[in-house]
Amino acid sequence: MNTRARFIRNYASTLTHELAAGAVAVGLAAHDAAAQTREAPARPLPTPTQVSPQMQKIIAAPINPAWNVLGKTNEEWKAMAAAGAAAAVQGLPALREKLKVKSEPVTIDGVKAFMITPETIAPENRNRLLVHVHGGCYVNNPGEAGTSEAIFMAGFGHYKVISVDYRTPPDHPYPAALDDTMKVWKAALKMAPAKNMAVFGSSAGGALTLSMVLRAKQDNIPLPGAIAPGTPMSDLTNSGDSFATNAMIDNVLVAGKGSCDARAALYANGHDLRDPMLSPLFGDMNGFPPAILTTGTRDILLSSTVLVHRKLRQAGVEAQLQVFEGQSHSNYTRDASAPESKEAFEEIARFFDKHLGK
Amino acid sequence: MNTRARFIRNYASTLTHELAAGAVAVGLAAHDAAAQTREAPARPLPTPTQVSPQMQKIIAAPINPAWNVLGKTNEEWKAMAAAGAAAAVQGLPALREKLKVKSEPVTIDGVKAFMITPETIAPENRNRLLVHVHGGCYVNNPGEAGTSEAIFMAGFGHYKVISVDYRTPPDHPYPAALDDTMKVWKAALKMAPAKNMAVFGSSAGGALTLSMVLRAKQDNIPLPGAIAPGTPMSDLTNSGDSFATNAMIDNVLVAGKGSCDARAALYANGHDLRDPMLSPLFGDMNGFPPAILTTGTRDILLSSTVLVHRKLRQAGVEAQLQVFEGQSHSNYTRDASAPESKEAFEEIARFFDKHLGK
Repeated sequence: MNTRARFIRNYASTLTHELAAGAVAVGLAAHDAAAQTREAPARPLPTPTQVSPQMQKIIAAPINPAWNVLGKTNEEWKAMAAAGAAAAVQGLPALREKLKVKSEPVTIDGVKAFMITPETIAPENRNRLLVHVHGGCYVNNPGEAGTSEAIFMAGFGHYKVISVDYRTPPDHPYPAALDDTMKVWKAALKMAPAKNMAVFGSSAGGALTLSMVLRAKQDNIPLPGAIAPGTPMSDLTNSGDSFATNAMIDNVLVAGKGSCDARAALYANGHDLRDPMLSPLFGDMNGFPPAILTTGTRDILLSSTVLVHRKLRQAGVEAQLQVFEGQSHSNYTRDASAPESKEAFEEIARFFDKHLGK
Repeated sequence: MNTRARFIRNYASTLTHELAAGAVAVGLAAHDAAAQTREAPARPLPTPTQVSPQMQKIIAAPINPAWNVLGKTNEEWKAMAAAGAAAAVQGLPALREKLKVKSEPVTIDGVKAFMITPETIAPENRNRLLVHVHGGCYVNNPGEAGTSEAIFMAGFGHYKVISVDYRTPPDHPYPAALDDTMKVWKAALKMAPAKNMAVFGSSAGGALTLSMVLRAKQDNIPLPGAIAPGTPMSDLTNSGDSFATNAMIDNVLVAGKGSCDARAALYANGHDLRDPMLSPLFGDMNGFPPAILTTGTRDILLSSTVLVHRKLRQAGVEAQLQVFEGQSHSNYTRDASAPESKEAFEEIARFFDKHLGK
């Protein structure tokens, strides 16, 4: 046997991409004694080709320059949130017009909210109602700025939506947002049967959607007929692997320990981040309603999303997962003209249609 | 307004992690004129904490040292495949014993195969039959080495499984593997009703599972009642984003343009890689049977998997996706003692149970 042949044979016996459990398990045992932290080298990130031109623009954008800009004082945090909200609301009239949706401010049991109504409510949705909990790392998107995802859902899904304008830190830390969401949920229970209603939201709104179900279970309050937590901030301890693998790849949240985590800390206000009411990944998901979860392959919350999906399935809950090519955190809520946005919300709408009462 | 406050206000107006579609779309327009390739910097990859100790060992393993070892001649490729298979079969007796499964070689219409029978066939599975198509980049795992995933499925799912020992390149390039799989499928149609049967397999086996449905549609042959393509090599052009984002993170296939792609090229043997019979991602998925897809967050075929899932859903096919935390390509087929392996195959078994006739 010549040197080359011996080389190949030696290497072949360590092949780990063969679907051969027994042999591989033996091979690995030799390596794992010193399970060191590996390193991923730098690499180029070409713009994905299997997405729409609109989504390519979103994905090719540079990393969010504000991702690690921190407020030095409560006033600075509030000024940033106000400035962001002021910018965000400028796009809302055009978005509502495009999706043929109207918005009106309401107050529900003392909690501010917006009633988002599509021009056409699907016949099967006449007796249904959705509750939307917006994202923004618990601090951002106060007021009407928080309604854009509700507009997507109402417009693409033809459902009526209440979008909760919950109180925000630093003035109103945990559990204010959850308390406000629960108040609206309890009020909604007088508007429609629980089984005809769904709760949804992305990012902090996805976490609040999950925590809201945990709270309702705890307080013995009827649960919604379905939920749609989008890329939920389900784990404020950032234990998921995608905080490492997608760090600096995600162009929205970018990486852990940035301004989003700092905002979430304002919300937690010293409470244990492992508390399931703050990190619902650690909660008991038995008895949860059917759930559909949405994320993207570049999302630093990819793990926080798929871990919730597995946990729901382990608890026997009907749970679907949709993962979009190349998308960073919550990219599907960005551009109503991107086919992927329509696809994501229509998929959620179909899931609700399948599971909600009429 | 002092400098700091102005800085914050300026940055806040560019915040892209606010769920505010309209404003963000405007902000992005300024950037996208020169949609350059971004770069992901080097970063540490700690071992994930939210997985079992068994899976931590698999995930913490160094990258597969053979990932880019290429044969210089057909004889070298065959020697590597033979050496890998010889190593793999050593673990099979223990695996079969652990999972209480027996294996016997059979020949079906001239095609070699293995009949994998669990000690206990679930009562609801008495009239059901699964067809398994093994992985190994089309070249590896000839003979009994290809049966390990079939043993997992038979053992965890309590189904009877035929595992196809299809012919492999370089001696037998495309369409030999597909032809052999179709012969076994046609023979299986005489053993059980099509709607009582499912086809499954990972990696190249996942791609063959999909191509087999495309071929059956084309030839007007009855389709299986369900399929389970695991991390399918659905796109030999490697157009998916995770070929970039998970390059050198996945410790099994590691990156594109390695030995797995070289093996797939031996199979393609000069045919257009975009042909749906080689890259089923580009096929017409209308009329496909219910499908469950499996992958992991570190898998370089994460995109190849989720893109198939989206395409199936776009075609109105009942399709489920399960994505496992921290797993590289096909990690769920490695260690039968890892809870995640049991979970993956039990989930597939439940999906089959829901969709197959009895």
